[in-house]
Amino acid sequence: MAIESALAALSLQASTGTGLPTKTLVFKPKTAKTATPVPVVVIALAETATNTKLIATAAGVKEPRLANEDLVQEFFGVTAKQFSIANIDASLKDQIKVVVDENILKGESEIFTFASESGALSLEGKTVAAFLAATGVEVIPVDFSAAPVAPAAKPAPKAASAALDAKLIGVTVDKFLDFPGWYSQILTKGEMLDYYDVSGCYIMRPSSYAVWERIQEWFNVRIKKMGVSNVYFPMFVSSKVLEREKDHIEGFAPEVAWVTRAGNSELDEPIAIRPTSETVMYPYYSKWIQSHRDLPLKLNQWNSVVRWEFKHPQPFLRTREFLWQEGHTVHMTFGEANAEVMQILDLYAGIYEELLAVPVVKGIKTEKEKFAGGYFTTTVEGYIPATGRGIQGATSHCLGQNFSKMFNIVVENPDTEKYGEDEKLFAWQNSWGLSTRVIGVMVMVHSDNKGLVVPPRVSKDQVVVIPCGITAKTTKEEEAAIMAGARAVETRLREANVRAFGDYREIYSPGWKFSDAELKGVPLRIEFGPKDLASASVTCVRRNDGQKETVALADLETAIPALLEDIQATMLAKARKTFDEHRVTVENWADFVKELNNKNLVVAPWCGIMECEEDIKDSSARNGEEEEEVDEKAPSMGAKSLCIPFAQPEMKEGTKCVKCEEKAKLYCMFGRSY
Amino acid sequence: MAIESALAALSLQASTGTGLPTKTLVFKPKTAKTATPVPVVVIALAETATNTKLIATAAGVKEPRLANEDLVQEFFGVTAKQFSIANIDASLKDQIKVVVDENILKGESEIFTFASESGALSLEGKTVAAFLAATGVEVIPVDFSAAPVAPAAKPAPKAASAALDAKLIGVTVDKFLDFPGWYSQILTKGEMLDYYDVSGCYIMRPSSYAVWERIQEWFNVRIKKMGVSNVYFPMFVSSKVLEREKDHIEGFAPEVAWVTRAGNSELDEPIAIRPTSETVMYPYYSKWIQSHRDLPLKLNQWNSVVRWEFKHPQPFLRTREFLWQEGHTVHMTFGEANAEVMQILDLYAGIYEELLAVPVVKGIKTEKEKFAGGYFTTTVEGYIPATGRGIQGATSHCLGQNFSKMFNIVVENPDTEKYGEDEKLFAWQNSWGLSTRVIGVMVMVHSDNKGLVVPPRVSKDQVVVIPCGITAKTTKEEEAAIMAGARAVETRLREANVRAFGDYREIYSPGWKFSDAELKGVPLRIEFGPKDLASASVTCVRRNDGQKETVALADLETAIPALLEDIQATMLAKARKTFDEHRVTVENWADFVKELNNKNLVVAPWCGIMECEEDIKDSSARNGEEEEEVDEKAPSMGAKSLCIPFAQPEMKEGTKCVKCEEKAKLYCMFGRSY
Repeated sequence: MAIESALAALSLQASTGTGLPTKTLVFKPKTAKTATPVPVVVIALAETATNTKLIATAAGVKEPRLANEDLVQEFFGVTAKQFSIANIDASLKDQIKVVVDENILKGESEIFTFASESGALSLEGKTVAAFLAATGVEVIPVDFSAAPVAPAAKPAPKAASAALDAKLIGVTVDKFLDFPGWYSQILTKGEMLDYYDVSGCYIMRPSSYAVWERIQEWFNVRIKKMGVSNVYFPMFVSSKVLEREKDHIEGFAPEVAWVTRAGNSELDEPIAIRPTSETVMYPYYSKWIQSHRDLPLKLNQWNSVVRWEFKHPQPFLRTREFLWQEGHTVHMTFGEANAEVMQILDLYAGIYEELLAVPVVKGIKTEKEKFAGGYFTTTVEGYIPATGRGIQGATSHCLGQNFSKMFNIVVENPDTEKYGEDEKLFAWQNSWGLSTRVIGVMVMVHSDNKGLVVPPRVSKDQVVVIPCGITAKTTKEEEAAIMAGARAVETRLREANVRAFGDYREIYSPGWKFSDAELKGVPLRIEFGPKDLASASVTCVRRNDGQKETVALADLETAIPALLEDIQATMLAKARKTFDEHRVTVENWADFVKELNNKNLVVAPWCGIMECEEDIKDSSARNGEEEEEVDEKAPSMGAKSLCIPFAQPEMKEGTKCVKCEEKAKLYCMFGRSY
Repeated sequence: MAIESALAALSLQASTGTGLPTKTLVFKPKTAKTATPVPVVVIALAETATNTKLIATAAGVKEPRLANEDLVQEFFGVTAKQFSIANIDASLKDQIKVVVDENILKGESEIFTFASESGALSLEGKTVAAFLAATGVEVIPVDFSAAPVAPAAKPAPKAASAALDAKLIGVTVDKFLDFPGWYSQILTKGEMLDYYDVSGCYIMRPSSYAVWERIQEWFNVRIKKMGVSNVYFPMFVSSKVLEREKDHIEGFAPEVAWVTRAGNSELDEPIAIRPTSETVMYPYYSKWIQSHRDLPLKLNQWNSVVRWEFKHPQPFLRTREFLWQEGHTVHMTFGEANAEVMQILDLYAGIYEELLAVPVVKGIKTEKEKFAGGYFTTTVEGYIPATGRGIQGATSHCLGQNFSKMFNIVVENPDTEKYGEDEKLFAWQNSWGLSTRVIGVMVMVHSDNKGLVVPPRVSKDQVVVIPCGITAKTTKEEEAAIMAGARAVETRLREANVRAFGDYREIYSPGWKFSDAELKGVPLRIEFGPKDLASASVTCVRRNDGQKETVALADLETAIPALLEDIQATMLAKARKTFDEHRVTVENWADFVKELNNKNLVVAPWCGIMECEEDIKDSSARNGEEEEEVDEKAPSMGAKSLCIPFAQPEMKEGTKCVKCEEKAKLYCMFGRSY
């Protein structure tokens, strides 16, 4: 352990035995985008409430929030759970500030225990003080008992305190007060995902991978009906091939990961890991397509791609490796290609709305935002209520003939009457992709301060059965009857193809199990206790809205699937209502920024000119405030064009662009976005 | 084109216009393992038969065979189809030999056209001679008309000529005369796979990926019933984590691919691409498993792994990236772990026998051959009749407590009566994997000189419907009735969940379509012509054995699925018979080598001592002959222990080891192998 060598250097001694338990936390203050953050380490007695206002004042920083895993990793080289006082050393001088509970510094010969996942260490108060002094980091003693009694939580004090009341197993961060912290907790505590020791990579645990598998099944059935076949192309690309389409590669080059060594041998030429597969596949398309009879060619692959972004990573939304499907198809005519682009876009909307219960807006990207090297890009765009930001859901591109000309995907014209005069016809191509990002959107939209809320159609488990009401007074016979009854409910549901499981763990109370199932987002809880036994029924509690319902045992096989479908529909309706309320049509610029600041997306008349689009983005950034880091920029970033919705509001004669003085050509949806 | 600059340097001119067509082929002679091969380029008139005996004599080499893609790539940097005279230059001096048709060299001012996928070039005979002379490569003029009339093909002259008779679209190499050449053709012409421009990587086209998808479906259903969940761990591993288990990593280190750069930035530390995921996953297992209630933990992932082997690659069997599933499970006791190892092994045997119609032998690996760092390895072993070699099918490992001790996967003992006295219990772990190698084994076992033969249960398409008997004399009405009848057959089969398609392409004759479907391995061909129309029946031809059968139209929905199942059963029975005939039990060393040379696997009594196992391998190599390259070593390589079969022959009292003088402990299956 690091501190041991540090202490040795100080000629100080770690105490044996156990002392007063402490906690060591890392906070990140609000920081200008261009500046490196200075984390604030807080060391306090475990029982002390570490009020953030007090920390802010003491450390002279703005809005400290619990730091995310990546920041802790970056500064201390360990996870938050492994972090302790032992990880502070002289190299961190001027890099961090350390706020220490006065009770510890004053506790001369009192013993304090510093425990983390990496181990525990007990030290006298004076040793702590000496150690910190020796490292040279800025140490700020604080009397936490001086905290104001009721810390004023700005937007939603009630929710905040509810979150703070949550049990240890539960979520301790409020969705609307600290969205990134909440998102991270909900995913890890809900066991969807775990952080990984390579930055920007995450582990998809069973409950998130199950969502992905359901999406795969649903989508595969439908694309196969359209004549698409699945294939697998290699993950490696030679640099020569990667760089063949210039516009296209420019978008990806800064993020390409390169393999330069195998075993102990340097490779003759570095080999790239695919960031997407256009240039991987199309040389072979050119070879395989020799005649119009080889068209259409429709291939898709489920794979992982790598984009080594240096921006702040975020689980599911921005990760260095991610899973997706990428379809690549080739057609004789624009008409065919275009029809497929729209069909696929409808399937993407179906994945969001029918499976994930997340409403989306279909539309087309502006020239500025379209896929590099393509002809046009269609998109489904979602909305994250907690941040008021838009999010791109999935894109279906028509590539036109750009790639076919570059890669010589060409056939002889079989019918000049039908296809025009040209002897050679360059094929029309599409590519379309949907990634595991969808899971992040689903979690952000539905989940709450109790944990995950997962729509029944995609959740790994749909129903948890929990035996209840067994107390010291319960007779052996009654207990056996309740347990047997609960197991029978589980078995019957499984046989009716409901993904049900029973939580029969003896050491946990029903209440604990309720919280655990809520944390994990199981859509329906079925309680089975003495009353249920007596009345031959079960008590159902819906995860999404907490509504209770009694279902007769006789009706299980029909009522429970119906209930699950109702939960699914209710979730979609609720999310749709929210999205509809936060998609505001405005006609003038003053309203534009106002509505944006009200956490809305705005649909506004627009001239269609790229310079104006850029002006809109710049002008809608909150100039008064300091710019923040990318991942937390919601309140101040400028609005991008998200899409030109297919469903256009009717435009009145003479309508002008929301920003410039030009005539408006169409309505465009703008928003701050991910 | 390369030759243009070369010609420019020579002050020579390429002719315009078209001349006599030529062909340019690359042969690889038999070469000692330690030596670099010297390819023989043959340039001849297109119509000239380029007899290999003659080439061998002229060039002074042994057994020249058409070179595979990788060799051509290695020497000339292009694919065989792109290769032409233009790719020969001075840098190849002493690296290659060029055998040239005398007709070309003598053809002074005659014009010859050299065409490849990369373009065509016409040159006068003297220009060709001057160009080749200028490169400095060894040029050997040959009069191909001097070839012996009937080249003696050793083992199977009849099959050989049959293959040579095959149409251009078909396979032109005989399975038993040139197995690697046949395998490569069958995969590419059958459209299962294509070669890729990164060496050792291949493209899985729809018909091979479909086999993989069927395996996934079958296996997923069964492991999920066992309580296994699918997950996805990142493909990247930090070097620290990768190297944590020493024995284990030693086996993989020389083949690990390293990412050292992203965009233009060098990474601080190189990051490995997983060769397998034990060390990727187990740190997290340690974190997630806190109590005996967290056991068993059963996770599986379908992913790609990278092993940058420098040995000769072979599609499906040895590729630098391959797809597989890897299961990683954790149990309280050895009993549980062991039971699962065997259950999984049964599933692997099921994939081979029930889906791929490939018989396997189940058994356990010797200490020498087991998984590095594991406790024991079980395996299913197959047999490739054409080469007489064994092939490892898939392995299910019990890792014991080795990894759990290394990664601290430990729980408190909840019940000392049940689990013994120790306070802490290290978990018992398994890992098990099956890769796309299975597809290669399937192809090698069943396919023939006409093309692929794919078992109906896994083939992408099961039935092709071909309208027949339409001639110039056919009336419009009759033609329409035949076409409509064929389409109706297709539709009815699809509705009965048979994967049927119709081949209605007008430019091809039925005969051409038959060959095409045979090449691609469609299990059943249904012909529908005037006679079938008249008799309300269809004519069925089975791909596996060419048997014809008439099925009444009325019975389609029952008879065709039954026929497909019969094909499946027939294929398995035939392959099993062959394997059984070539798995020979021997008791003494003289028979051991003899039977090995007869293309058999041998089951022999063995002492169980590792040194003896090594001695068997060394002694069974054909010492008299030169050692060849790994990929072609079948005839001479030594025999490895493949497995100790679970089904042991009864051992007589006093039986001695087949090799040494020790008492035999058990029967072990040995063989030359992949």
